[in-house]
Amino acid sequence: MAILVVGSVGYDTVETPAGSREDALGGSATFFAISSSYFAQVGMVAVVGDDFTADSVDILKAHHVDISGLQTAQGKTFRWAGVYGPEDVNSRETLDTQLNVFADFDPHLSPEHRSLPYLFLANIDPELQLNVLGQMERRPKLVAADTMNFWIDGKLEALTEVVRSVDVLFVDENEVRQFAAPHVGSVNVVKAARFIQDMGPETVIVKRGEHGVIQFMGDSIFAAPAYPLESVVDPTGAGDSFAGGFMGYLAGTGDLSPGAFRRAAVVGSVMGSFAVESFSVERLSALGQAELVARFRDFSHLSQFDGLKDTEMLPWRDGASNL
Amino acid sequence: MAILVVGSVGYDTVETPAGSREDALGGSATFFAISSSYFAQVGMVAVVGDDFTADSVDILKAHHVDISGLQTAQGKTFRWAGVYGPEDVNSRETLDTQLNVFADFDPHLSPEHRSLPYLFLANIDPELQLNVLGQMERRPKLVAADTMNFWIDGKLEALTEVVRSVDVLFVDENEVRQFAAPHVGSVNVVKAARFIQDMGPETVIVKRGEHGVIQFMGDSIFAAPAYPLESVVDPTGAGDSFAGGFMGYLAGTGDLSPGAFRRAAVVGSVMGSFAVESFSVERLSALGQAELVARFRDFSHLSQFDGLKDTEMLPWRDGASNL
Repeated sequence: MAILVVGSVGYDTVETPAGSREDALGGSATFFAISSSYFAQVGMVAVVGDDFTADSVDILKAHHVDISGLQTAQGKTFRWAGVYGPEDVNSRETLDTQLNVFADFDPHLSPEHRSLPYLFLANIDPELQLNVLGQMERRPKLVAADTMNFWIDGKLEALTEVVRSVDVLFVDENEVRQFAAPHVGSVNVVKAARFIQDMGPETVIVKRGEHGVIQFMGDSIFAAPAYPLESVVDPTGAGDSFAGGFMGYLAGTGDLSPGAFRRAAVVGSVMGSFAVESFSVERLSALGQAELVARFRDFSHLSQFDGLKDTEMLPWRDGASNL
Repeated sequence: MAILVVGSVGYDTVETPAGSREDALGGSATFFAISSSYFAQVGMVAVVGDDFTADSVDILKAHHVDISGLQTAQGKTFRWAGVYGPEDVNSRETLDTQLNVFADFDPHLSPEHRSLPYLFLANIDPELQLNVLGQMERRPKLVAADTMNFWIDGKLEALTEVVRSVDVLFVDENEVRQFAAPHVGSVNVVKAARFIQDMGPETVIVKRGEHGVIQFMGDSIFAAPAYPLESVVDPTGAGDSFAGGFMGYLAGTGDLSPGAFRRAAVVGSVMGSFAVESFSVERLSALGQAELVARFRDFSHLSQFDGLKDTEMLPWRDGASNL
């Protein structure tokens, strides 16, 4: 086992221009765990209610997810309901949030989980994220966290401590601006990411939805486009699926070189692109190796170009023949 | 001489979070011509008033732009005034537009211009774009056009004819949606671009500002990120500078292969990134070969990653050792 994820498991009711689903399996830890399972083994710490179905458990088990840390509490599982589009399928409106058993989520890590080398703190209360990090037996090899505007508004102090404590921060484009703008006096994403890097994380990954991601690692910047899909069925879970592919690749290979981080971002993009092709985890949980390989190759082709010859510039400086 | 551009030449008054300029040299044909001049020779057809300065002429001449088609009419040169940001430096508000002599722009091509092999129809009235295309002695090797929402709203029929007649259409992300959504029943950019390709152009280049461009050429899709700048001084002219680098590269090399189109999109991105680093054409008009080469290399590094090994996926399928 390599990665530990702490986050939410729930049931989502979603409406998009492509259709709708009621009470479909979702949650940050769910998308992350299934996505990363294609590359490494993953243990999940989360809480569900006594209405959590055997089918849902089976999906996780089929991906060899270690669910020994999935507590069942009396009451109902976390529920979220939202609607996307139609003008912009990446903008969503939350219709309803029922925390249910998640309201009292108090993660306790098993001795085995405390010593895992890769830790992903999914988007939950930053105080819980810090609590989980504090339970680790030793500093993991790589700690990554995700967050959202809700915590920037409501728990900035704890969130700041989380940011200071992690190696990799996943953050969406608007959130990184919101977080950094008061300090850097600008909404420029490069400045915002540099500001966060200066706080601690060597790597900041700015998620830009259908525009892909931009990864700041040390002084190096890597831009990975999103896979251009003709139909985005349901964007729910795209970010967590990205993070799952990203962390899964790093944990599976054990390679933390800058080159591996770039490949990890592409693997994350691949997994995110599968996630949004269906509702819930329908497509993400049913992938074969051939599909993964084919889409990674498509990604390579998507941004590939050859070098330019120096002689192809400034023809008039040398009186070149192509005038 | 290789490329003919027909478009606007004017003076812009611009305010951005980085500062402001009054009556600075601008216009679609200006940015295009200066940008493309680094790669091929370019002839410009446009109209200016009798207030057009000798300094402005000198900037064009310094780039070996053929201005024999730059008519001077009695009256004032085209003026535009706008303000950008601060929330989003890519969104702008037009404060004032004075067409002046541009209101009666009636392009007449010289015999030499009529036989040029590369033609760029900058963002002007689509009826004028058709008029210019009709004056060409024979079908140029490559015809490209740019447009904007104003013409989608106001001159859809003529614009549709333009789209049917060109090889390459440059269009921004919101405009391509606006143009295609009524036909494809969706705001999906891939579907929108495919719809336009079906009308005629083999290549559709969707401009996404700070998110780069996505180029649809035949069945192939190429995504080029924007250069991540810490400071965007003035976005005016970025699109025309992109088009200038793009067309300049193709005309300069004479290579119209799919690989050349990809490099052309990167050259366009390079030129767009220089354009926005200053007001007006201040930076764009003062580039040296070393800067061009260095930024092209930075671009290559920006989206470069190595292939994935098949053995790095699905470890549990084979009971691989990295579990």
